[in-house]
Amino acid sequence: MVVSTINGTSPLSHSNGTTIPLSTFSRNSFVNVEKGDPVAFRPYWEKVRDECTVEIKGDEWMSYLGDTNNLCWYMVPQMRDAILRLHNVVGNAVTKDKFLVLGTGSSQLYQALLYALSPSESSHRPINVVAAAPYYSEYKDATDILQSRLFQWTGDAALYDKDEPYIEVVTSPNNPDGTLRVPVVNSGVEGKIIYDLAYYWPQYTPITDQLDHDVMVFTFSKCTGHAGSRIGWAFVKDIEVAKKMIRFVQLNSIGVSRESQIRAAKMIGVICDGYKNLKSIESDHLFFDYSKRLMKERWEKFKGAIEKSKVFTLTKYPTSYCHFNKDLSEQYPAFAWLKCLEGIKDGESYLEKLKIRTRGGGRFGVDTKYVRVSMIGTEDEFIELCTRLSNAKRE
Amino acid sequence: MVVSTINGTSPLSHSNGTTIPLSTFSRNSFVNVEKGDPVAFRPYWEKVRDECTVEIKGDEWMSYLGDTNNLCWYMVPQMRDAILRLHNVVGNAVTKDKFLVLGTGSSQLYQALLYALSPSESSHRPINVVAAAPYYSEYKDATDILQSRLFQWTGDAALYDKDEPYIEVVTSPNNPDGTLRVPVVNSGVEGKIIYDLAYYWPQYTPITDQLDHDVMVFTFSKCTGHAGSRIGWAFVKDIEVAKKMIRFVQLNSIGVSRESQIRAAKMIGVICDGYKNLKSIESDHLFFDYSKRLMKERWEKFKGAIEKSKVFTLTKYPTSYCHFNKDLSEQYPAFAWLKCLEGIKDGESYLEKLKIRTRGGGRFGVDTKYVRVSMIGTEDEFIELCTRLSNAKRE
Repeated sequence: MVVSTINGTSPLSHSNGTTIPLSTFSRNSFVNVEKGDPVAFRPYWEKVRDECTVEIKGDEWMSYLGDTNNLCWYMVPQMRDAILRLHNVVGNAVTKDKFLVLGTGSSQLYQALLYALSPSESSHRPINVVAAAPYYSEYKDATDILQSRLFQWTGDAALYDKDEPYIEVVTSPNNPDGTLRVPVVNSGVEGKIIYDLAYYWPQYTPITDQLDHDVMVFTFSKCTGHAGSRIGWAFVKDIEVAKKMIRFVQLNSIGVSRESQIRAAKMIGVICDGYKNLKSIESDHLFFDYSKRLMKERWEKFKGAIEKSKVFTLTKYPTSYCHFNKDLSEQYPAFAWLKCLEGIKDGESYLEKLKIRTRGGGRFGVDTKYVRVSMIGTEDEFIELCTRLSNAKRE
Repeated sequence: MVVSTINGTSPLSHSNGTTIPLSTFSRNSFVNVEKGDPVAFRPYWEKVRDECTVEIKGDEWMSYLGDTNNLCWYMVPQMRDAILRLHNVVGNAVTKDKFLVLGTGSSQLYQALLYALSPSESSHRPINVVAAAPYYSEYKDATDILQSRLFQWTGDAALYDKDEPYIEVVTSPNNPDGTLRVPVVNSGVEGKIIYDLAYYWPQYTPITDQLDHDVMVFTFSKCTGHAGSRIGWAFVKDIEVAKKMIRFVQLNSIGVSRESQIRAAKMIGVICDGYKNLKSIESDHLFFDYSKRLMKERWEKFKGAIEKSKVFTLTKYPTSYCHFNKDLSEQYPAFAWLKCLEGIKDGESYLEKLKIRTRGGGRFGVDTKYVRVSMIGTEDEFIELCTRLSNAKRE
């Protein structure tokens, strides 16, 4: 067996699943904030590790089938119940009169949705898929990887002016820039909208509305930080769309890991139980309280570093009333979106020289003076990031 | 939330993961042997349920990353080690000097391979994908679902006579008919071969050779019966093919469930430990001994029922020397492939009248007088199947 290292990412977890303290950054080692691995919340899960333990015996969960009474036959009832309960607690989405479709992360559901929302007659031209720039860097490749005749990536939704059917992906809060989004295409024809709500959770943004769109996608990864589980879900209004999505997931992977479903249901249960027993629990043991406080602290520290450097500007976010926290609050996005001041044309290259690995604006469909920086990595990495950024000087 | 039942499948597992005894088949209830849900081996896993228990704590396996030192960065080292150990114990594949790519079941790897083996220049016509009939009923739809410009389903490999590049899928032992297969295309151009070895395990067939092909795909589902885990793997000779497959899995689902990997590694460990401690263990506790005996008993009972009915004929299988069991053995395929005698044109419809749900030959690219029958369902269902088949009479 030949092995090789890919793209020099720092090891974040040990082979036994525990954290390696990343305390010793040498001057020459990279701080890698290029990816969005949501390990920041691990200290919370360490606190509650025992009550979150799942145990699976040898003969359990063997079948392909999860629930033959549900249209989404590979989803176990515990998973469905946990998802519905979570949205009921947070109040971020209307789940009534919608079909719940489970996926192997929201990436699989994105492809399932492109398939389900495209016209199936092969006489049609591929439907155009657009998102307002800056847009999530993987949409383009995820759309075009198989060169489908059903759909094709067409780029920035703000520039879309064709008189043809389209699918607009609305990511809100947006990845990479954290802004709250609404559809922007202004076309003569009616489009279909996919709401990617991966970051519409109280630690990142005030929950201003209980959203009620026809197609809404969520992911477990960015909600609790359990990215390794590969659990995502969509609420879909139209049964025909739901059926096509389920057929796609069947052909693509014959359903979704049963072990991940059982574990995700357990973690979500622990979160929801906390908010049910509000009076008897410390706020440090309430997941969204903990994770919001963490994001707030990081953002304050980060803003200080950026101010000190005088090399970048940051996106400004409004303050809104959060129905979940019952207070006025700013946004604390999972990514910071930096704009380099005049004189720095390529932010990614500039930061590489400071031994900070980021993802440049070009990947998100905009100018290379922008870069995306993960705010949800390990604490050590984050602190080192702030130190290096605060020392940044104009060239 | 609206729910609806799909295709009347019998519930095979309870919401808590335990078996519901399916002991009471009324005259009007269907015996469903249409799918290949491998729950037959559950009694074995009940025996060893406690030694197979996995426990996952709240803060474990959170990252997207499994092993940054491996090309297949989402695979944890335990999973890799378990797979290599299993093939070392069984002796069914040469793993040396190959890349191991993990997938969400082998279905995901099938699509990853079509992508990786297709010419990437868009000037090319789609590469033809073929398999000798009768072929696995899902290949066609899995190939054509997104109407890719990279590849297209072209049907029966035995009829392929184009002077164009092709991918031949060789499923051996074959689904549906259990036969051992070699490539059959006889074309002027060189083709690429995908060996789908889902059933190349000792309970189904003598292990006659340690296979050493460029592309070999296996699945955990049909090996141990844990279909719900969605774990598959491929051994690939060419690093460029491996890299493209990993990129596909990244865009498709950002890796493979960590919980499933941990559990699969544990189960495989228990199997391999048994064969390591051969002398101190009862043969009933050796997985492949147990499962082969079960398949043999079912096949003997099934052949008796078919003989009694005088309505069907069965595929004949050769006897070969099994290097794993060190004896001469017949094949005991996961599916029976029945041919109806003269007078019955549509086997599936004929068996529907006997309240037996099967998958007809048309789905496998051959005549409707053939049907596929699962041999790996629950014991109760299997016994009822034999009873009903033995009472079948010519119309």
